[in-house]
Amino acid sequence: MARSTFEQAGEDLAFESIIRAGTLDMWLDHVGMYVDEFKLHITPDGYHTRVVDPANVGMTETALDKQAFESHRAGADGNGTLVVGLAIDRLQDVIGLVSNDELVSIGFDDETRMLHLRAGEINQSIALIDPDTIRQEPDFPELDLPTRVDLEVGSLRRAIKACGLTSDQISVGFYDGESEHRNWGLFFSAEGDTDDTLVDPDETKQEVHEHGETDTILSMSYVEEMEKVLPKSGEVQIRVGKEFPIKFDFVDGGDEETIETTVMLAPRIQSE
Amino acid sequence: MARSTFEQAGEDLAFESIIRAGTLDMWLDHVGMYVDEFKLHITPDGYHTRVVDPANVGMTETALDKQAFESHRAGADGNGTLVVGLAIDRLQDVIGLVSNDELVSIGFDDETRMLHLRAGEINQSIALIDPDTIRQEPDFPELDLPTRVDLEVGSLRRAIKACGLTSDQISVGFYDGESEHRNWGLFFSAEGDTDDTLVDPDETKQEVHEHGETDTILSMSYVEEMEKVLPKSGEVQIRVGKEFPIKFDFVDGGDEETIETTVMLAPRIQSE
Amino acid sequence: MARSTFEQAGEDLAFESIIRAGTLDMWLDHVGMYVDEFKLHITPDGYHTRVVDPANVGMTETALDKQAFESHRAGADGNGTLVVGLAIDRLQDVIGLVSNDELVSIGFDDETRMLHLRAGEINQSIALIDPDTIRQEPDFPELDLPTRVDLEVGSLRRAIKACGLTSDQISVGFYDGESEHRNWGLFFSAEGDTDDTLVDPDETKQEVHEHGETDTILSMSYVEEMEKVLPKSGEVQIRVGKEFPIKFDFVDGGDEETIETTVMLAPRIQSE
Repeated sequence: MARSTFEQAGEDLAFESIIRAGTLDMWLDHVGMYVDEFKLHITPDGYHTRVVDPANVGMTETALDKQAFESHRAGADGNGTLVVGLAIDRLQDVIGLVSNDELVSIGFDDETRMLHLRAGEINQSIALIDPDTIRQEPDFPELDLPTRVDLEVGSLRRAIKACGLTSDQISVGFYDGESEHRNWGLFFSAEGDTDDTLVDPDETKQEVHEHGETDTILSMSYVEEMEKVLPKSGEVQIRVGKEFPIKFDFVDGGDEETIETTVMLAPRIQSE
Repeated sequence: MARSTFEQAGEDLAFESIIRAGTLDMWLDHVGMYVDEFKLHITPDGYHTRVVDPANVGMTETALDKQAFESHRAGADGNGTLVVGLAIDRLQDVIGLVSNDELVSIGFDDETRMLHLRAGEINQSIALIDPDTIRQEPDFPELDLPTRVDLEVGSLRRAIKACGLTSDQISVGFYDGESEHRNWGLFFSAEGDTDDTLVDPDETKQEVHEHGETDTILSMSYVEEMEKVLPKSGEVQIRVGKEFPIKFDFVDGGDEETIETTVMLAPRIQSE
Repeated sequence: MARSTFEQAGEDLAFESIIRAGTLDMWLDHVGMYVDEFKLHITPDGYHTRVVDPANVGMTETALDKQAFESHRAGADGNGTLVVGLAIDRLQDVIGLVSNDELVSIGFDDETRMLHLRAGEINQSIALIDPDTIRQEPDFPELDLPTRVDLEVGSLRRAIKACGLTSDQISVGFYDGESEHRNWGLFFSAEGDTDDTLVDPDETKQEVHEHGETDTILSMSYVEEMEKVLPKSGEVQIRVGKEFPIKFDFVDGGDEETIETTVMLAPRIQSE
C-alpha cells in the first residue's frame, strides 16, 4: 500500500528540505504565472526552475535560495542535483491547509518515485510527472535593451490596472521631452475604442539608470498574471527597448529576499 | 494621437474640478441606482443630475455641493454651466483604482470632446456620450403626500431586507391604532405564499411629522437598489400616501453632507 | 389578513422562547447538516431533533438546552411538549438579518398554525410544515464500538481537508504499531489515483480511551458537511470500529455548552 512509503527513513530520501509554508507557497506562485507543471531543480544552492507558456510569450526564471530553508539537503551527501517534474496545484493545495509560519518538510523517495510532503499532521505522497512530458525549459536570450528603470511596484501595479480598464494591450514607452503636463521617464499607455489611458510615474517613483528608444506593446493577460505575484513593496527593474522582449526582475521572500524572479515577455507586433 | 490631449493646459478646459475619490465615487453610486448613463450638469454650485429608469418607475435627483470639492471651476470665468453625457462605470472603474482619500482631477476639453480624469499617476481620457442619446431628464411632480416621517436608516434597511425574504413587493403603511403588540407609526410589510413579514420600528427610531391615509406597494427590486446606497447612519425622510408615488430624501458625504439625494418611486397598482 | 396574527397576546401562544440570535443560528446549522426540513421538539428542557438524510447515510441528533434561552415556556402551563415541522432556511434567513447578540422571540399560534419570530423590529410569520410530510425520525442503533478517542477539533478539521484533496472517501484507522515515522493512535487516510494522504495526529492531540480493530471508510461529502459546523475549539469524541457506523459527539454554544450533537455516519462497503 502506497502509504507505507511514509515509513521510509529520512536518510534514504534523495533530497530533503524543510521550509516555512508561506515561503514555499509564494515561490510556487512565481513559478505558476504561466504554467501548471514545471521541472524542479534541486541543488545544494536551493531550488530553481525556468518555464515558458505554450504560446512562447511568457517566460519565468525563478530561484529559491537555500537561505530560505530551515534545512536543505540535496542528494545523499548533500552535494547532489536532482530534477523532478511536479504539478503546482497539487503542492499548493496541501500547503494551503497549514498556516504560513508552519514548517513543511519535502522529500523524494527514489524507489517509489513519490514526493513526500509533511506539514504538521498531514503526510502527502505526490506522484511525480515524467520530466520528458513537461514543456522544455526555455533559453533566456541575451538582449541589449537600451532602457533600464527601477520602478516602484505600486506604480507598476496601478499602470497595469488602469491600462487594463481600457484595452487588452499595454504600451511601454519613455518620454524624453519637456512638458509641465507630463512626467519625464518611463510611461505606460493603452488605447481603447473611445478612451485612452496614460500612466506616467513621477521622478520619486522611478530611478532611470539608462534610457533609449522605447516602444513595446504587451498582451495585457500576461502582464496581469505577473501583477498578481508582484511583491507588496519595493522596486521592479524593467529593461525594455523598441519592439523587443521586455524583462522584469524582482525579489521577494521577506527581508532575506530569498526569491529572485525574472519575467520575460515577447512583444506584440505593432500594426501599422 | 489622443493621448496628446493630456498636454492641454488647465486654463483651456471648459471646467475643472478637484475632489476626493471617495466622495465622487459615493455620489456616482447615488446617480447610478437606476441608470447606466446620465447628463452631468456642471454649475458654479457643483454637480447635479436627474435620472429615470427606462420603465419610468424609479427617479433620482441628486446634487454634489461645491463644498465637496477641493477646487471647482465651471466655465472659463467660473460662472458657466455645462452639460455632458457620461457612462457611470467608465468613471467608477478609474476612481476605484485609487484610495478614497486621493484627489481626482476632472476636466473637459471642448475641442476633443473628451473628459480628462487624473488620479495620482493615472490619466484617463473618456469619450463623452451625446446628451441627446441619453433618456430625457424627468420632472419630479409636486405631490401633496399626507405622511412624512424621519426614519433611522438602520430600520429602513432592515425593513427592506426582511420584506425581501418574503416577497418581491413591499407595502408601506401607517398604523394609527393602539395595541400592546404593535408599534404606532410607519410600518413595512410583505406577504408571501405562506409567510408574512411586518417591520414596525418603535418610536425611538422614527419621528412622525405628519400622518394620514397611507398604503403604498413598491417593487422590491427598486427599493433594494436604493438600499445599497443608503448612508451608513442618520435618517431618511419618507413622504408617502395612498397609492401615490413615494419620496425618500437623504444626505451623505460625511459631516458636510455635500450629497443630497431624492428618490421617487411609482407605486404598484394594488390588485383587488 | 395573516399579519393580524401578530396581535395575538403572548399568553395564547402554545410555546414561547427568547434566545440570542447567534445561538439559535448555530443550533440550526447543526440540525441542517443533512436535511432541509425537520421536526422541532419543544419540551420544558429546551429543543431537540433527530434527522436522517434521504440516503440513510448521515444522521444527526442534537439538543439545545433550556440554559441557552433567556426565557422558555413549553405549553400554556410550561410543562407541555410540542412537535412542529419547519424549513431551516426560512428561520435562518430571518435570523441572519440581526446581529448575533440580539434576542429573537419565537412563538407558535395553534389557531393559525403559524410560527412567529420577532427579532428587533422584524416580525415574521412562518407557515409550519405538516410533520407527517417530513422524513421519519431515525433510531440511533446501540453499537459496541471498540475504539473511543477524544480528538482535537483542529486535527479532525485538517484530516478532513487534507484527505478531501486526494479522494472522495476517507478512511479512519488505528495504528497500534511502533515506528519513528508514524504516530500511535487514530489516523485518517485517503488514496487517490496517484497521490495518498495520511493524517496521524500526535499524542498531544488525541486522548485514547479504548482501542480495537478499526477500519472504516466514509463518504467525503458527508464528512465535509459535518466539518462546516464543528466547533472552533475543543474536542470531538469519535467512536469507531471495523466497517461499522461511526459516531462523532461534540458540544458548542459557548461556555455553557448548551448545544449537544451526535453525528452518525454509515460506512461505505470496502471493495475487495
